[in-house]
Amino acid sequence: MAKMLFITLMVLIISGIVWYAAKVFMPQSPPQLDLEEWWGPKELKGKQDRSIRPFQVNFSSELVTDLRQRLKNHRPAVQPLEEVGFQYGFNSKALAPWIKYWAEEYPFEERQKFLNKYPQYKVNVQGLDIHFIRVKPEVSDKVSVVPLLLMHGWPGSVREFYEAIPLLTKQQDGYDFAFEVIVPSLPGYGFSDAAVRPGLGPAQIGVIFRNLMKQLGFKQFYIQGGDWGSGIAGAMTVLFPKEVLGYHSNMLFISNGYSQLRTILGAFIPSLIVEPHLAERMYPLSKFFAYLMEEFGYFHLQATKPDTVGVALSDSPTGLLAYILEKFSSWTKFENRASQDGGLSKFTREQLIDNLMMYWASNSVTTSMRLYSEAMSNKNRGLGLDKYTTTVPTWALQAKNELFYQPPNILRIKFTNLLGNTVLDDGGHFIAFELPEVFVKDVFMAVQKFRSWHGMKTEL
Amino acid sequence: MAKMLFITLMVLIISGIVWYAAKVFMPQSPPQLDLEEWWGPKELKGKQDRSIRPFQVNFSSELVTDLRQRLKNHRPAVQPLEEVGFQYGFNSKALAPWIKYWAEEYPFEERQKFLNKYPQYKVNVQGLDIHFIRVKPEVSDKVSVVPLLLMHGWPGSVREFYEAIPLLTKQQDGYDFAFEVIVPSLPGYGFSDAAVRPGLGPAQIGVIFRNLMKQLGFKQFYIQGGDWGSGIAGAMTVLFPKEVLGYHSNMLFISNGYSQLRTILGAFIPSLIVEPHLAERMYPLSKFFAYLMEEFGYFHLQATKPDTVGVALSDSPTGLLAYILEKFSSWTKFENRASQDGGLSKFTREQLIDNLMMYWASNSVTTSMRLYSEAMSNKNRGLGLDKYTTTVPTWALQAKNELFYQPPNILRIKFTNLLGNTVLDDGGHFIAFELPEVFVKDVFMAVQKFRSWHGMKTEL
Repeated sequence: MAKMLFITLMVLIISGIVWYAAKVFMPQSPPQLDLEEWWGPKELKGKQDRSIRPFQVNFSSELVTDLRQRLKNHRPAVQPLEEVGFQYGFNSKALAPWIKYWAEEYPFEERQKFLNKYPQYKVNVQGLDIHFIRVKPEVSDKVSVVPLLLMHGWPGSVREFYEAIPLLTKQQDGYDFAFEVIVPSLPGYGFSDAAVRPGLGPAQIGVIFRNLMKQLGFKQFYIQGGDWGSGIAGAMTVLFPKEVLGYHSNMLFISNGYSQLRTILGAFIPSLIVEPHLAERMYPLSKFFAYLMEEFGYFHLQATKPDTVGVALSDSPTGLLAYILEKFSSWTKFENRASQDGGLSKFTREQLIDNLMMYWASNSVTTSMRLYSEAMSNKNRGLGLDKYTTTVPTWALQAKNELFYQPPNILRIKFTNLLGNTVLDDGGHFIAFELPEVFVKDVFMAVQKFRSWHGMKTEL
Repeated sequence: MAKMLFITLMVLIISGIVWYAAKVFMPQSPPQLDLEEWWGPKELKGKQDRSIRPFQVNFSSELVTDLRQRLKNHRPAVQPLEEVGFQYGFNSKALAPWIKYWAEEYPFEERQKFLNKYPQYKVNVQGLDIHFIRVKPEVSDKVSVVPLLLMHGWPGSVREFYEAIPLLTKQQDGYDFAFEVIVPSLPGYGFSDAAVRPGLGPAQIGVIFRNLMKQLGFKQFYIQGGDWGSGIAGAMTVLFPKEVLGYHSNMLFISNGYSQLRTILGAFIPSLIVEPHLAERMYPLSKFFAYLMEEFGYFHLQATKPDTVGVALSDSPTGLLAYILEKFSSWTKFENRASQDGGLSKFTREQLIDNLMMYWASNSVTTSMRLYSEAMSNKNRGLGLDKYTTTVPTWALQAKNELFYQPPNILRIKFTNLLGNTVLDDGGHFIAFELPEVFVKDVFMAVQKFRSWHGMKTEL
């Protein structure tokens, strides 16, 4: 009885706070970012090559010889603790077959060809050479061509979309459009240049990608992103609501005072916030916080000392493998932590090493990790773009094993035109990579809805 | 006025809670640990060699050749961001001279001789071969010989005490005793074996070290520790209050509900908790929390995924150097973060590379980092040894740039016989290494006080 009373009281108080928060926490006019901010060397300013240059991935024989030698020469990792899977991190017993595969079996030439199967380019945007894939669909004149910007995150790469690209650029049954896809490497990732000075966070990358699309001739376009790709995309929907026609995310997540209060309210009465069968994806909060403590050490380190840990990871391919594949293990299914091999068989070995090669060949792991520091800097947290609403139509694809889950009634605090969400009973963080058909199907369905919402049929 | 009222109210409320907490938070009977718990391979149980075997550090030519080759072959680290010192971690421009020094100038043979200047041994305790230095003083019969266990932490080693050992084992003016020092490598550190199964946290290491001392014939002894050494020592004072005659710490710190409440109380009225001129070492708490966020990513990672990051750090000496020397930079003086070279000149290059060799030669960085995971495991946090008081006489040496500061009135919650503290206006986390004379002087002074407190003069 006393407990009931306490809960009722808490709910009333928190509801009041939530109502009040809704009034004060969501200001209307987003900050203006410098749309020409220069991230490259100062001396290049005004002199950069503005042309769009073809690019090909090149695994030179020097690179391959050196890499193989490093892998074969790797220092014996210490034994894992008895009866431990991946709970202390990558199990060293599971390491050996991966090292052997990368050093002795991974067909570098064949994979280089594979990675070059789509047209790739570099173009200078705000001082940085940005690497991107661009594939135009081969469809009849009756089929609309819809531009779609696909944005990866960490520790992924453009490689995550290779299985999805041919499906996205083909007309699918029931749809009168197909996608022209533009898939950039984030600045500092893979073959895109890194900023030479502090400050390039997700919002600023959003500016770069908007300018990239503009340089490619796209005044308006759709965007898709997960992981940092969703951080960048979320910023773009606030900064460029007229250019972004719709946003499909496989990791839609917002964080502002109001969303946090609603989340806390739901901890008392989940049914106010989340459908009962999905409550376990959010609650109890104690489980969520334990999970953050357990799984977000990498985030904490990368947000503070990326240049330190980056030295080892760029010098040791074995170390890079353990560091990155650990994420493909636990982020695909949390329960993989208990297994001896990390449950990595959801992906082929080629897939995972292809993705590693994007970091190794370009020596970009340090600059990739700096994005955490920039996103968490006082200046960029101060921007607080999650505090602003956007009218861009949005769709959330929510995989079973994604890192976070938020229900529509929280997501709509920011994405006022969230047209819906697809809740999956399968799949993890790297959904385009893991379940490309499911991913592509959802993107088509969502963009169809965005187009209807805009009242468009065949024209863009 | 409203603010004054609010503060008064808060202070009254918190004072009440503090008073109540003092009653309930400090139980009296500490838990009993298994004093024979077996940490080695099961099949060794009952069959281990119990003898004390001499040990020497050996930098084999294979080890040196391989290490030099790895260092020279290190992959070019990416450029630091413009106008950045160590704020993003180890500045890669400061890396080159260190790599060159280690690969080309560090005199391996000479340093091996140096590291073998004191008698070293190994002895099996609870299944693990524990490496230790033991130096008996050469003094006349009139001078008492007092056993002192010196305990290092991460990322230190027994090397931290090499400058202090000759001073500790010599009679100093004004004292009628000198120390016989026992300096073990922590299990999993340097040349001490690592546990083969989960669970070996600071308290359990305390049991191992007590058993080590017993095997060496010391029924009672003094202890000294900083960093994990102070975690281990703090546990020993609770578990073995009769064996531990006194405890000198250069990083005395406690954490329980009561200490936290007092700390919060002090945030409102610092003068209740801390002398005015020392308040800035604790407050404002916002500064302290920002510092924890900024500087404790390594802790978060090592407490959760030591085996992952360990793969890279044990494969890349360049990476290990950056990872460990970053700590010698920021923990010696926080302001070193802003400098281009990390302010590492407080130590000689030989000193810092000697210490690195303790991790590299023994390939122990992964097992050393596991201590964070064990200390933070539910089981070991559940022990909550900081909740128990100890009567062991204690002295705190408090360097200006130590990671944490707590005043006597908080430390006495646990260390009821804290005889005093020495507040330094200089020095950092690795005080024995950085300022050996200051360190030794304080240890003598403290142990003198412990002996007086026990009513001892010349006998032990």
